Amino acid sequence: MELTVYLAGQIHDDWRDTLEQKAKQNNLPLSFVGPQTNHDKSDSVGEDVLGEQPNNIVKDDTASSINNFRTQILMEQADIVIALFGENYKQWNTAMDASLAIAKNKPVMIIRPTSLVHPLKELSNKANVTVENVDQAIKVLQYVFL
Amino acid sequence: MELTVYLAGQIHDDWRDTLEQKAKQNNLPLSFVGPQTNHDKSDSVGEDVLGEQPNNIVKDDTASSINNFRTQILMEQADIVIALFGENYKQWNTAMDASLAIAKNKPVMIIRPTSLVHPLKELSNKANVTVENVDQAIKVLQYVFL
Amino acid sequence: MELTVYLAGQIHDDWRDTLEQKAKQNNLPLSFVGPQTNHDKSDSVGEDVLGEQPNNIVKDDTASSINNFRTQILMEQADIVIALFGENYKQWNTAMDASLAIAKNKPVMIIRPTSLVHPLKELSNKANVTVENVDQAIKVLQYVFL
Amino acid sequence: MELTVYLAGQIHDDWRDTLEQKAKQNNLPLSFVGPQTNHDKSDSVGEDVLGEQPNNIVKDDTASSINNFRTQILMEQADIVIALFGENYKQWNTAMDASLAIAKNKPVMIIRPTSLVHPLKELSNKANVTVENVDQAIKVLQYVFL
Amino acid sequence: MELTVYLAGQIHDDWRDTLEQKAKQNNLPLSFVGPQTNHDKSDSVGEDVLGEQPNNIVKDDTASSINNFRTQILMEQADIVIALFGENYKQWNTAMDASLAIAKNKPVMIIRPTSLVHPLKELSNKANVTVENVDQAIKVLQYVFL
Amino acid sequence: MELTVYLAGQIHDDWRDTLEQKAKQNNLPLSFVGPQTNHDKSDSVGEDVLGEQPNNIVKDDTASSINNFRTQILMEQADIVIALFGENYKQWNTAMDASLAIAKNKPVMIIRPTSLVHPLKELSNKANVTVENVDQAIKVLQYVFL
Amino acid sequence: MELTVYLAGQIHDDWRDTLEQKAKQNNLPLSFVGPQTNHDKSDSVGEDVLGEQPNNIVKDDTASSINNFRTQILMEQADIVIALFGENYKQWNTAMDASLAIAKNKPVMIIRPTSLVHPLKELSNKANVTVENVDQAIKVLQYVFL
Amino acid sequence: MELTVYLAGQIHDDWRDTLEQKAKQNNLPLSFVGPQTNHDKSDSVGEDVLGEQPNNIVKDDTASSINNFRTQILMEQADIVIALFGENYKQWNTAMDASLAIAKNKPVMIIRPTSLVHPLKELSNKANVTVENVDQAIKVLQYVFL
Repeated sequence: MELTVYLAGQIHDDWRDTLEQKAKQNNLPLSFVGPQTNHDKSDSVGEDVLGEQPNNIVKDDTASSINNFRTQILMEQADIVIALFGENYKQWNTAMDASLAIAKNKPVMIIRPTSLVHPLKELSNKANVTVENVDQAIKVLQYVFL
Repeated sequence: MELTVYLAGQIHDDWRDTLEQKAKQNNLPLSFVGPQTNHDKSDSVGEDVLGEQPNNIVKDDTASSINNFRTQILMEQADIVIALFGENYKQWNTAMDASLAIAKNKPVMIIRPTSLVHPLKELSNKANVTVENVDQAIKVLQYVFL
Repeated sequence: MELTVYLAGQIHDDWRDTLEQKAKQNNLPLSFVGPQTNHDKSDSVGEDVLGEQPNNIVKDDTASSINNFRTQILMEQADIVIALFGENYKQWNTAMDASLAIAKNKPVMIIRPTSLVHPLKELSNKANVTVENVDQAIKVLQYVFL
Repeated sequence: MELTVYLAGQIHDDWRDTLEQKAKQNNLPLSFVGPQTNHDKSDSVGEDVLGEQPNNIVKDDTASSINNFRTQILMEQADIVIALFGENYKQWNTAMDASLAIAKNKPVMIIRPTSLVHPLKELSNKANVTVENVDQAIKVLQYVFL
Repeated sequence: MELTVYLAGQIHDDWRDTLEQKAKQNNLPLSFVGPQTNHDKSDSVGEDVLGEQPNNIVKDDTASSINNFRTQILMEQADIVIALFGENYKQWNTAMDASLAIAKNKPVMIIRPTSLVHPLKELSNKANVTVENVDQAIKVLQYVFL
Repeated sequence: MELTVYLAGQIHDDWRDTLEQKAKQNNLPLSFVGPQTNHDKSDSVGEDVLGEQPNNIVKDDTASSINNFRTQILMEQADIVIALFGENYKQWNTAMDASLAIAKNKPVMIIRPTSLVHPLKELSNKANVTVENVDQAIKVLQYVFL
Repeated sequence: MELTVYLAGQIHDDWRDTLEQKAKQNNLPLSFVGPQTNHDKSDSVGEDVLGEQPNNIVKDDTASSINNFRTQILMEQADIVIALFGENYKQWNTAMDASLAIAKNKPVMIIRPTSLVHPLKELSNKANVTVENVDQAIKVLQYVFL
Repeated sequence: MELTVYLAGQIHDDWRDTLEQKAKQNNLPLSFVGPQTNHDKSDSVGEDVLGEQPNNIVKDDTASSINNFRTQILMEQADIVIALFGENYKQWNTAMDASLAIAKNKPVMIIRPTSLVHPLKELSNKANVTVENVDQAIKVLQYVFL
């Protein structure tokens, strides 16, 4: 049984690589998908495909339409969704990905520092599990296969 | 035909009153529900019901369980969801409410200042309509009954 | 038992008034909803709410977002969907409304002239009933209450 | 991860072959399904199976019942739906296929020339992405695998 | 709490009147809907609406399309479905109505004589309750309100 | 807004009356439904309707089929489900009612003494809220209307 | 693309073998599942598993519970459902299987002689395709792969 | 066709091993999943992942959140759910697993001694099949592949 994990969350550091490597070191039969992690591409993809747009609102809307198309395809493949929240950035995409997964009855684990307990409390309560860091998330994933 | 509107969003100012009054002035056949707007109650309701909790994480989790119970009941009654985002606060509850409504196929309108176009672009793209302020939202609601 | 009927179709003549009057003459306990029938408003509503848009594509997209918001609210109220097709206009909105209603398991009746049998054959086959004119549609609605 | 794409749209030219070849040239791990592209067979299949029918309406209805049976099977296999609209033909089948896919929460991309922006605006707004030609569609599909 | 009951079953005798009267005598807060019980109308409605059809197969198909339209509307209103089977007639409509109700998670009670235990055993096992006659069905309905 | 509450749980004492009276004293706009609380009737209803059964297993199965028919009708009416667990009885019906409500996305509150924390921990975690007694449950219901 | 076909219908002759062989002769990439075709086993399986039952009604109910368990597993695997009706037997199982498949949005083809047009008209109208014999059904299956 | 079976039930003896071995001896093409069967791990996993918790209620809640995450992933993989009830333990997890599976329309078989007929009667009536021991369950599984 190989399971697919969607990794929702910010795309400004390499937390996905860290998590994927630790999963590999532990021989967990997991493959990973997630949002576009090339930040520039994620912002420019609307204009990359459709050409110059008349203003930034439209540029952003065309980019988001393609990002949502991509994300919807990949999340549909996922058996598990992990959503990481950090102290920077608005991360409303992360909240959206986690919430849509909850609504689709996909098992959801949130990773967040304890400094974010309060603002995330309702979303944490809706998700299955909340942990504080990637190492704890790996322990939970290991437990799935015990 | 009287419709029920769920007003998702921060609970630190009186934007809901403003919107509800303008709806009334326009004779729109709407009633309104939403999250607990008494911020202190929203934070303390876990301990108000269950007594003192061992630490803040547990206090927050018990409060959120009751807030989510309340919200789930009320959103189920809603024909329309309006989610207001502003420049302060994390507002992950707002993103969660909007996303769960989208997943349930409830019509969703987002209100956000143009300064938030970029971080909200994927959620805006999933919602039905995005406007910039309460007056524009009222115009959209009026249009439903034209 | 009063039922609500959503009347999908073009908005360039008064077929809805005709159908509604005949329903009234027959004392059918029906109320009616449908898309925005003021064609100018339907096209301009995006700019009416959000102000001037940078080009016609964006103008159309903002208008359609508000039209879809309105339509989704009203179709959700409907127990029955009637979709009228005529020989003019693209009428892809009508096809969309009928198809979404079919997918939601709402009972759908199509009205179309026999000249359109061939291009509408797959959609007719998915709908519950296909008739040729408003008078026949009224006969079907009468039959529901016999 | 190999994905299946349903190609909705007219069957009077070889746009599917073009798109499939470009996908192959770009090594995209995609397989393709779609409606019956042999136009004569698509029209005659009712009589091919059931024998001569009493008139054209019935001939068309029997053909459409088999086309819809085929289409429903194949679209169920699809992870992605692409719907191409052109300036000729009614294309209500295409609108139906796209709308049913949207209702099933399948990711949908529309290809249409800018001349069709206005009549397709509500359907475009419901779909995930709208592009103008096959080359742009290929760019979007490439982006899914980046 | 007033509940609506859909009465599926043959339309050749007055079992519905009997059941409805007994419900009334027991002051059960129930209203009743069901298929068209005028057998001639049920068979001729296709031609009544659309005019003469080319043969009996087409006549039957047009009638059934209108009967199914009517039935789908009315069953959607029902909180409870009762399906009566007797020793005469094919009664595949009754089996279809009961099965569709089961699939929609509507509570289903079957009434059948013991002579039909064997051929109905799988459908009985899927339904909630099976009784042998109208009097027993009334007892079950009474029990709902105890 | 009047809401309906389904009260799942054992039927051996008058906890429902207590809860309903306290709701009334607090002017909560709630009406209540629940399983058959007449224990003898609940056990004998199969034979009451169908006559003597060949053994206790069959007697129980016929009774349960009618109880489930009744319960399914009434739970469908409920906006809220409250499930009370106590220290006596198997209470698998209570667990079933609560679980089916959770699966249907109905808001669920569990009432249980702290002595049952451990055996109920997975079900508590799936439900929205868990409290320890009827008074706390009333406080949560009050909060819904604040 | 290999598809699975569920063959609903009577189990008193070898129509399934005939159909499967013709599919094989035509190299159709299909595998087949269906109800238990050993009639004696289908009737006795309740007692085969649970021992002697107190009467025929209970014997039939235990058998049907196991038959329904088996059928539900296998139909869930099916991409296509074919339901054959003949002139003998009640065939309410067949009507149930076809109706449940329709409700689950599985593509359904009915095979029935023209003598059964009238009593099957509503179910035929709900199904995707109706043909008259196995050879025509094979032609439709071939068309899926053209 | 290889099917996956989720084995719900207590984790205090080796009934799963027994059942799996008998399935293997009978060459049934089945693989098995289920809840965490290491009882200590199941109780301590919350603290194993998140560190010491402030009291037993919180300890249990964190453990259950991870157990439910694991269970939801694995049950989603299952084509069949078997739930064993015995005379010891509360087994509300077992009732929850069986009920959630029923609500998801997964085929469910219950194994229970006849001493539990009465308290399990409503859940048995909702499940597909109820048998008395593992050997009978194996016979039912064999019958699926006959």
